[in-house]
Amino acid sequence: MVLKAEGLQRAGAFKFRGAYNAVRALVEAGSPAGVCAASSGNHAQALALAARLCGTHAVILMPHDAPPSKRAATESYGAEVIGFDRYCEDREQLQAGLAAERGLHVVHPYDDPLVMAGAGTTALELLQDAGDLDVLLVPVGGGGLIAGCATVAASLAPSTRVVGVEPRASPDVARSKLSGRRERVSVGRTIADGQQLPAPGERTWPVIDALVDEVLTVSDEQIVTAMTFLFERLKVVAEPSGASALAALLAGAVPARGGRVGVVLSGANVDAARFAAIVSGAGARGTHD
Amino acid sequence: MVLKAEGLQRAGAFKFRGAYNAVRALVEAGSPAGVCAASSGNHAQALALAARLCGTHAVILMPHDAPPSKRAATESYGAEVIGFDRYCEDREQLQAGLAAERGLHVVHPYDDPLVMAGAGTTALELLQDAGDLDVLLVPVGGGGLIAGCATVAASLAPSTRVVGVEPRASPDVARSKLSGRRERVSVGRTIADGQQLPAPGERTWPVIDALVDEVLTVSDEQIVTAMTFLFERLKVVAEPSGASALAALLAGAVPARGGRVGVVLSGANVDAARFAAIVSGAGARGTHD
Repeated sequence: MVLKAEGLQRAGAFKFRGAYNAVRALVEAGSPAGVCAASSGNHAQALALAARLCGTHAVILMPHDAPPSKRAATESYGAEVIGFDRYCEDREQLQAGLAAERGLHVVHPYDDPLVMAGAGTTALELLQDAGDLDVLLVPVGGGGLIAGCATVAASLAPSTRVVGVEPRASPDVARSKLSGRRERVSVGRTIADGQQLPAPGERTWPVIDALVDEVLTVSDEQIVTAMTFLFERLKVVAEPSGASALAALLAGAVPARGGRVGVVLSGANVDAARFAAIVSGAGARGTHD
Repeated sequence: MVLKAEGLQRAGAFKFRGAYNAVRALVEAGSPAGVCAASSGNHAQALALAARLCGTHAVILMPHDAPPSKRAATESYGAEVIGFDRYCEDREQLQAGLAAERGLHVVHPYDDPLVMAGAGTTALELLQDAGDLDVLLVPVGGGGLIAGCATVAASLAPSTRVVGVEPRASPDVARSKLSGRRERVSVGRTIADGQQLPAPGERTWPVIDALVDEVLTVSDEQIVTAMTFLFERLKVVAEPSGASALAALLAGAVPARGGRVGVVLSGANVDAARFAAIVSGAGARGTHD
């Protein structure tokens, strides 16, 4: 088993790779007034940091009730954060209005070829470091990470079986793989908040459809087991979504048969208090939909 | 700030360095029947692993009430674990009897020049990686780690100020530094179980006396703050003792004045459940002596 610990990536998740790739390309193509996105998650911090490193401005729309730590972290990278009411206001409309008014370029968290390509460098480095793999396990949310990784694997290691993993409560990509078309699901409760999406992306889906071999689902309990394993045995932090691919392996859901398995740990942005609640069971209550 | 993350060391703590150095020297000098120690902590696992790597046998005396995970981890490295009743039986006597009967060599967890020298490679690597440091902060328990590190610093970077840090509940080395002789204290409750020792070692003390500039103390609350910082910002695990030196720096107890500060994170062997209890306050109750 070879792990790619993207929790140790800048801003604590693989998201920086895609954001940086997109922002750098925009700036090189003729600097826009800046970039923007609506996010309270890892994409917000990644885009803020990428903009700072590329010398442009980032504006992040974030719900008023986002954790103060997320807002502070995003602002600490120099971004401008604008709050909105996620129950009364439409984020897409707000974002489009903001972009038009200020001449900002919207960087989507996953449904953008440059973001997908940037995310794919995760697999590029893993294959360079680890050599050939029989199986590559990748967490799936919107699908940007696995689309990029599957593209890299198809080119450099075509015999590698690329397997996605998502929470059982949000099985949109697994169902889409079974039916062969983009399926929309109602998203249930899960601790894996980075993967709570109702459907694969418009642009990520065709890549997943063509290049991903299989998508499995895991329970919150299996994710907690993987987070605990990483903490106690490898001494590294993973957020719930970040541990989901490993969860499938530890649960025996992946027929590895002694082969070489690569696992992407996609991120580690979880507060210590939330980790404590999750590990002690308080954070996992009622989430096994 | 440059951190040396010994939690990522083999067996999860700096202890492996000293144990390996001692066991290898013993085996090279003519193989003993094996090595032994009384420990339920990091030294047990370190010695077990060192013995396996050097092709000899390790016997560990461990209290019957030691956490099952510690016993299992020690056995997983191939050691023989013998339980004893720490309330009725004398561990020194048991250990001496066992060593005599079986021809085993006792490897002390810190009060041994080979163990101290091995532990000192922590500072050797840190100085090689980071270059000159103005201050080097090192957790202090029995004193083996800081004795080794101070010896290395005195030789390679004599202008580096070497500062030890121990829990406020167990200030034996800090008091000894103030009085200039080995002081014995009654050890209070603290979450930093790796540093609950009543007096500096007989062999570590003269080195600490000569080469360590100062020893500071930190509260359990300050240690929890450091553990949380490491978890949330650097995404790495530290056990309470392992975070103690960083705790002093974050608390502003070290006059760093913009200089280059090296900090040893000495270990990361803490169960997720215990980390959860500590972070949520349950594990720190009544420990601020």
